[in-house]
Amino acid sequence: MSSLPAQRKHLTIGLFGFGCVGYGLYDVLQKTPGFPAHIKKVCVRDPHKARPVDASFFTYDASELLDDPEINVIVELIDDAEAAYPIITRALRNGKAVVSANKKVLATHFAEFHALQQEVGVPLLYEAAACASMPIIRNLEEYYNNDLLESIQGIVNGSTNYILTKTATEGVSYDEALCDAQAKGYAESDPTLDTGGFDAKYKLLLLLAHAFGHVAAPDDILTLGIDGLGALELNYAREKGLKIKLVAEAFRRADGRIAAYVTPRFVAPHERLFGVDDVFNGVVTRTRFADEQFFVGRGAGAHPTASAVISDISALSYDYRYEYRKIQQDGATALSDDFEVTILLRYRQDDAMALRRYFRSVTETYGNADEGYTIGTLSFERLRLLSEDSLPKSIVLFGVDAETEALAVDTTETTSEQSVPAFVI
Amino acid sequence: MSSLPAQRKHLTIGLFGFGCVGYGLYDVLQKTPGFPAHIKKVCVRDPHKARPVDASFFTYDASELLDDPEINVIVELIDDAEAAYPIITRALRNGKAVVSANKKVLATHFAEFHALQQEVGVPLLYEAAACASMPIIRNLEEYYNNDLLESIQGIVNGSTNYILTKTATEGVSYDEALCDAQAKGYAESDPTLDTGGFDAKYKLLLLLAHAFGHVAAPDDILTLGIDGLGALELNYAREKGLKIKLVAEAFRRADGRIAAYVTPRFVAPHERLFGVDDVFNGVVTRTRFADEQFFVGRGAGAHPTASAVISDISALSYDYRYEYRKIQQDGATALSDDFEVTILLRYRQDDAMALRRYFRSVTETYGNADEGYTIGTLSFERLRLLSEDSLPKSIVLFGVDAETEALAVDTTETTSEQSVPAFVI
Repeated sequence: MSSLPAQRKHLTIGLFGFGCVGYGLYDVLQKTPGFPAHIKKVCVRDPHKARPVDASFFTYDASELLDDPEINVIVELIDDAEAAYPIITRALRNGKAVVSANKKVLATHFAEFHALQQEVGVPLLYEAAACASMPIIRNLEEYYNNDLLESIQGIVNGSTNYILTKTATEGVSYDEALCDAQAKGYAESDPTLDTGGFDAKYKLLLLLAHAFGHVAAPDDILTLGIDGLGALELNYAREKGLKIKLVAEAFRRADGRIAAYVTPRFVAPHERLFGVDDVFNGVVTRTRFADEQFFVGRGAGAHPTASAVISDISALSYDYRYEYRKIQQDGATALSDDFEVTILLRYRQDDAMALRRYFRSVTETYGNADEGYTIGTLSFERLRLLSEDSLPKSIVLFGVDAETEALAVDTTETTSEQSVPAFVI
Repeated sequence: MSSLPAQRKHLTIGLFGFGCVGYGLYDVLQKTPGFPAHIKKVCVRDPHKARPVDASFFTYDASELLDDPEINVIVELIDDAEAAYPIITRALRNGKAVVSANKKVLATHFAEFHALQQEVGVPLLYEAAACASMPIIRNLEEYYNNDLLESIQGIVNGSTNYILTKTATEGVSYDEALCDAQAKGYAESDPTLDTGGFDAKYKLLLLLAHAFGHVAAPDDILTLGIDGLGALELNYAREKGLKIKLVAEAFRRADGRIAAYVTPRFVAPHERLFGVDDVFNGVVTRTRFADEQFFVGRGAGAHPTASAVISDISALSYDYRYEYRKIQQDGATALSDDFEVTILLRYRQDDAMALRRYFRSVTETYGNADEGYTIGTLSFERLRLLSEDSLPKSIVLFGVDAETEALAVDTTETTSEQSVPAFVI
């Protein structure tokens, strides 16, 4: 620091994709004089689509960007994980930094991209892939040290949160809320990626790596979607003053192993996530040093996502890169199934006996002529088996058994309340 | 980016102050192997105080740190703004980067420190000064462009929030809550810096510079504390289901000028800040591109503050520095008093007539034998005059007149609700 700090690099961008986010990025950069980056060329797939920018700005040949020595940053904003994979790897191998918002390709090839960055010494940033405009990955990288993060818990998918908010506040059915979300453009015509919890799982995989240094395979993570939610459990939530949210969470067990899952979950009014509605995302982290932090922001949309991409581009101009320090420190983290959870399980009356056997203990049951539910406790291992049972059902998590969880919490530190994760009833 | 990114610098730190935060920093660095920084020496004032670290680690001579060519970062964590000033200026002039958590010295010398950084080309970072562990300054710097930020609104002082939470949830008087806060160490024996709103004002000044590029003098900002709050207005809030919070806020008017103030404010359940209780801080930003973002974190305390300091140190290892782009783009921003606000004004019954003349219009009045209140609208200019009136009184803001505020909001963009700032009733 005794000499002048290094000047910021000027970045010459090759952009893949010119959909909403791509155009948003173009728009924001146009409106930001002095920002040390400009887009040189955009690679798109369809040469015939009308676009609001001069045709000479576009190419249909990826090599024109990937082999251009003047381009030092590739921004990858296409929707197709399979097409994104060779773009990212070729760009890194060609010495070009990469910014991507593609959670699926990043999550499924995490270990490979991590190794490739180490090998070629070129950064890959992806803040926009985790929760759009919320700076959650940067925070995990810069604030939290490996052994100090206790838990992370978030609503990380905007479409499902919109649907769930609508069922909670307007008392409509799940199907009506889904139709409305589709009409408003918040959900795809095939909404399974969102409603099945897969999008949330990919994001959780990214957070897991940066939060705990654990690189998990997508299949490792128990993922329950909201597409099976029915009237009984929605009514239950309403009557008890709870909300059902699709929550991705992970926490460190006392033995150092990591618990991680995506499930619909009852959220009580005193919990931070209770107020995260509509298409907003929210993430709560608990650490030994910073205690609880809570971030809320729009979890989707062209401009919020473009904002995160710009933040990554800005960071590249300082040669910023993820350190992945937690992965390096702690290669041996493993996932844990060895804890207990309390759930509400809803089923057809005929299946009640067959499904109740999964529980270790039961605190409440209800039945009408057609359907019923059981509230009770079971091991997380049994929950996996239950989720694979082919009988029709719906599962909503209350929380992790407080005794199990208590082991993982160091109560000698500053935190006074331990609300995450714990029973909400 | 075609060559390897620059390696992170190793930082050799000279630390001023070894109170809670200083020791917290030492502790966290000790526990973080691989972090590219170490403390070489600590300058403290009192040579006789017992300390948990070897005496050779300490010095009582500032020059030993400031003139040591090996030390490239000065971390200033002393409580005394006057003593901090020469440390920061000498360090910068000697080519050493500075990290400070001292909001008062930073806010009162902002323009000078800004000019000095430009002159000597050495960075001064101060994330910990704004809201302890919340990364709010970094976000304002990296995500938001000058013309895109619409408003910022926050609970930025933990002690007052603790006091106000206690009055709201336990129904105790202001004085009882203050005593409890003092007993718990959340408030000083002379609590005026917090309860008078001064601490919040210093933080708002930092946020104003990074949010809107406006460098204001402390005296420019209307600052109403919570130390005059009485039973009438606390009861009013309780009965209406509102909370009173000490809120710092700023928003851009349609003419480009900035409105900024610190006041007690009624907050309704649908507002983000409603759920920010106890010693937590919360900040809501509204921007054209990222829409609403909301950050919550511990606003005070040794470890949360040390976390923010560490984040700054980490950033220095990448040669990060604040760009102050908004100040450079927009030197001509000015503060605006030209808008209307709605307030509750509580007074002694005898002063009712004398004080009511400040209002342009009145919507509600109440009186008992001793006291009364008026709810009504007045210009912000008149509010300044009212605040200077020597008659005993208490003022709680409802919000900015919606018509005034509507002018400042670009409704063509993505935002659907405009809840900040606006009437809460």
